[in-house]
Amino acid sequence: MARVGTGYEAARPRLLALVGERLSTSTYDLKSHARDESFHPPAPPDAVAFPRTNEEVAAILKVCRECSLPVIPFGAGTSVEGHVQAVRGGISVDLSRMDQVLDLQIDDMDCRVQAGIRRLALNDHLEKHGLWLPVDPGADASVGGMAATGASGTTTVRYGTIRENILGLTCVLADGRIVRTGGRARKSSAGYDLTKLMLGSEGTLGVITEVQLRLQPLPEAISAATCTFQDIKGSVETVIEILQSGIPVARCELLDEESMLAVNDYARLNCPAAPTLFLEFHGSPASVAEQAERSGEIASEYGGGGFQWTRERENREKLWHARHHAYYAIKALRPGSYGWVSDVCVPISRLAECVTATLADIKRAGLIAPILGHVGDGNFHAIFLVDPDDEAEMERARTATNRMIDRSLAMGGTCTGEHGIGIGKHKALLDQHGEGVAVMRALKAAMDPTGILNPGKVLQ
Amino acid sequence: MARVGTGYEAARPRLLALVGERLSTSTYDLKSHARDESFHPPAPPDAVAFPRTNEEVAAILKVCRECSLPVIPFGAGTSVEGHVQAVRGGISVDLSRMDQVLDLQIDDMDCRVQAGIRRLALNDHLEKHGLWLPVDPGADASVGGMAATGASGTTTVRYGTIRENILGLTCVLADGRIVRTGGRARKSSAGYDLTKLMLGSEGTLGVITEVQLRLQPLPEAISAATCTFQDIKGSVETVIEILQSGIPVARCELLDEESMLAVNDYARLNCPAAPTLFLEFHGSPASVAEQAERSGEIASEYGGGGFQWTRERENREKLWHARHHAYYAIKALRPGSYGWVSDVCVPISRLAECVTATLADIKRAGLIAPILGHVGDGNFHAIFLVDPDDEAEMERARTATNRMIDRSLAMGGTCTGEHGIGIGKHKALLDQHGEGVAVMRALKAAMDPTGILNPGKVLQ
Repeated sequence: MARVGTGYEAARPRLLALVGERLSTSTYDLKSHARDESFHPPAPPDAVAFPRTNEEVAAILKVCRECSLPVIPFGAGTSVEGHVQAVRGGISVDLSRMDQVLDLQIDDMDCRVQAGIRRLALNDHLEKHGLWLPVDPGADASVGGMAATGASGTTTVRYGTIRENILGLTCVLADGRIVRTGGRARKSSAGYDLTKLMLGSEGTLGVITEVQLRLQPLPEAISAATCTFQDIKGSVETVIEILQSGIPVARCELLDEESMLAVNDYARLNCPAAPTLFLEFHGSPASVAEQAERSGEIASEYGGGGFQWTRERENREKLWHARHHAYYAIKALRPGSYGWVSDVCVPISRLAECVTATLADIKRAGLIAPILGHVGDGNFHAIFLVDPDDEAEMERARTATNRMIDRSLAMGGTCTGEHGIGIGKHKALLDQHGEGVAVMRALKAAMDPTGILNPGKVLQ
Repeated sequence: MARVGTGYEAARPRLLALVGERLSTSTYDLKSHARDESFHPPAPPDAVAFPRTNEEVAAILKVCRECSLPVIPFGAGTSVEGHVQAVRGGISVDLSRMDQVLDLQIDDMDCRVQAGIRRLALNDHLEKHGLWLPVDPGADASVGGMAATGASGTTTVRYGTIRENILGLTCVLADGRIVRTGGRARKSSAGYDLTKLMLGSEGTLGVITEVQLRLQPLPEAISAATCTFQDIKGSVETVIEILQSGIPVARCELLDEESMLAVNDYARLNCPAAPTLFLEFHGSPASVAEQAERSGEIASEYGGGGFQWTRERENREKLWHARHHAYYAIKALRPGSYGWVSDVCVPISRLAECVTATLADIKRAGLIAPILGHVGDGNFHAIFLVDPDDEAEMERARTATNRMIDRSLAMGGTCTGEHGIGIGKHKALLDQHGEGVAVMRALKAAMDPTGILNPGKVLQ
């Protein structure tokens, strides 16, 4: 590959001819495209391009390929494993100006959007039609970014990850070809599933420019509940039995004692400082009442106390506001710190053991790292509050996260339930998939032979 | 590639050394592995191997690769697009002796099985634990075959296709490497989704030998309902509103007038000969009662009549027995005929139009081809009852199915909702995915550079 500097100098006049002032090298743009929300060190691109059409993206990629210049797709910058860092320079292709709803079909409950539209803006647009995209990673991510990282979140236990809610894509490949994968049909057996191959590939196999989404009807009724437990085990056993009973719980979140302390402070709640389940039920009024009642009965069998539920929108939103802002609440425990969010996912039968052992590690290492999790999926995060300049502390956090990963793999889990590999988990990917990583490399070589697409991410 | 005959003669002693008498060239084995359940002409393999372990499969593939001999994975032979036909000779690798449940985790609601286990045997095994694999393609397919073809069926509207119910695989690659994809975690963002790439690849990218399944709790209560309509349109509009209302219907099938005539005869039912919806609801007793009631109200708004529902297992099974045997019932309409089952899937808003236009084509061509569909997915089949020796009739059927495909594509649908490409839909795949097929070819070349894996299927 040509050296990056050389590549950019050669590409610059050609890119300017393509997008004019929508090619930026302003300090602000370079800085804001140098990093995501993770603790990983920033790495600015040579320039940021703001294309408006598929064809512009294709033309940019052709130039970059000819100039051996890396291309880093950029959505909202809310990823957490360094996905958008321009670790080898190149062009950050910011899709935020491609943010239109291209097509909405109410009867089919689907829509086609440009990749740059944000999740909340899309749901605002959909609400008046009685529809929504239920996948909720917390952050106001772009839909294209959600697709590229295989996002999931609080509602996955009921509605699946973004992977289950995408029917097709438009992608620009490394050589500038524009390919439409999938389609509008609810299912298709027409050849290899290129859509699923692109989802979660973190911009390393193509640039996603359009997304065909499957939508859900807004629930007729919603109820929310909280329930506190003496220990993590009781809360996880409750969730196992809720799932085994076939109760279609829509959200199912666990916050540990320390997270609850943080949330109480931040959201001015007065919840007990104990492991707490946040539950949400969707359905008809009768159905959500029944779901809540049965879940409450199950919780009490496992020592759950203070089961509170509400169907009032205001109270419900107050509760979930607290959960949604847990990350900021937790960061407020140590002002000025970075949040190193570690993410593993295990079979749910091992979750209590995994969380408990992780908490013991954290305590032993003298770290602050509240834990919260999408417990219905067996997925949890430890949010290590660290000072990146304190190398000893960083090393202790690194050890603790590595132990989390090793423990998860030993339990049949994954090194990342939803955050991805980025630049942070190359070794973990190898530990987890071994020979599979060689297959991934072969696919990468087939799709991007010169390696211009988001180099250094997923695969080294 | 070496010529097939040469390849087999070279491979034969080596394969015998590997599997001994489990390499068969008996007339019965060659004949029963020459075809699936489709009308496509039979094509016997050179021999059939019955491996018992992953390592045996790997060793067979290494020999076949070195001898440039095609490998055709064989499950239960219930596919319908010629997936198992040995169109270029080679070794049919029959996985039926790899039929064990390797691991079952009740709390996690997952299990790992060998690929050769049949769907019904697995569900028998799971029932006593209160679990099931809900994906129901009708036929008693092998789980590996369902994985390889991306099977779906009557319950997909609620539980997804097999793709959404598989967490990981063990695959043997073209060079004999054994790779485990995915895992036991409910979700993972660890690298490219090799599992999904293999699902639906019809044995052309690897041989699936083990499947890690996500299971569902057996529903506490089930109710079934039928409802007749004056026309297809009313039935489809009913389903659209059921789905938009968020009623979690578990099965949702449409049989046209001619299918109902066939089913009445065959199952000694006395249903009206009119388009009929078969519905099934899963949940708590109160929930299924509510779902049925609300669905009945919706049906009556769209001219649905005679809404009957039952929670009695016996009556329910009688109804669904009729639906499940519709294929044989339909074939009995013309004894001795072949059933050419065409399969398309469109956005549901276009379904009534697509079915109606197809029925008009069938009538105009003087063909017998009852239609039934997984209407909640927008997926339907026309079962052309043909005499393969009557070339004029075959040509009329070909024209009608091609028009079905073209119409589906024009409506934003797919050329196959669940049956796959096999050897029957190469042109349709090109029409549908264009440049995407070039990407599929690049992936195939990366995964199977010498082209030994099920050659002629999916890609020509």
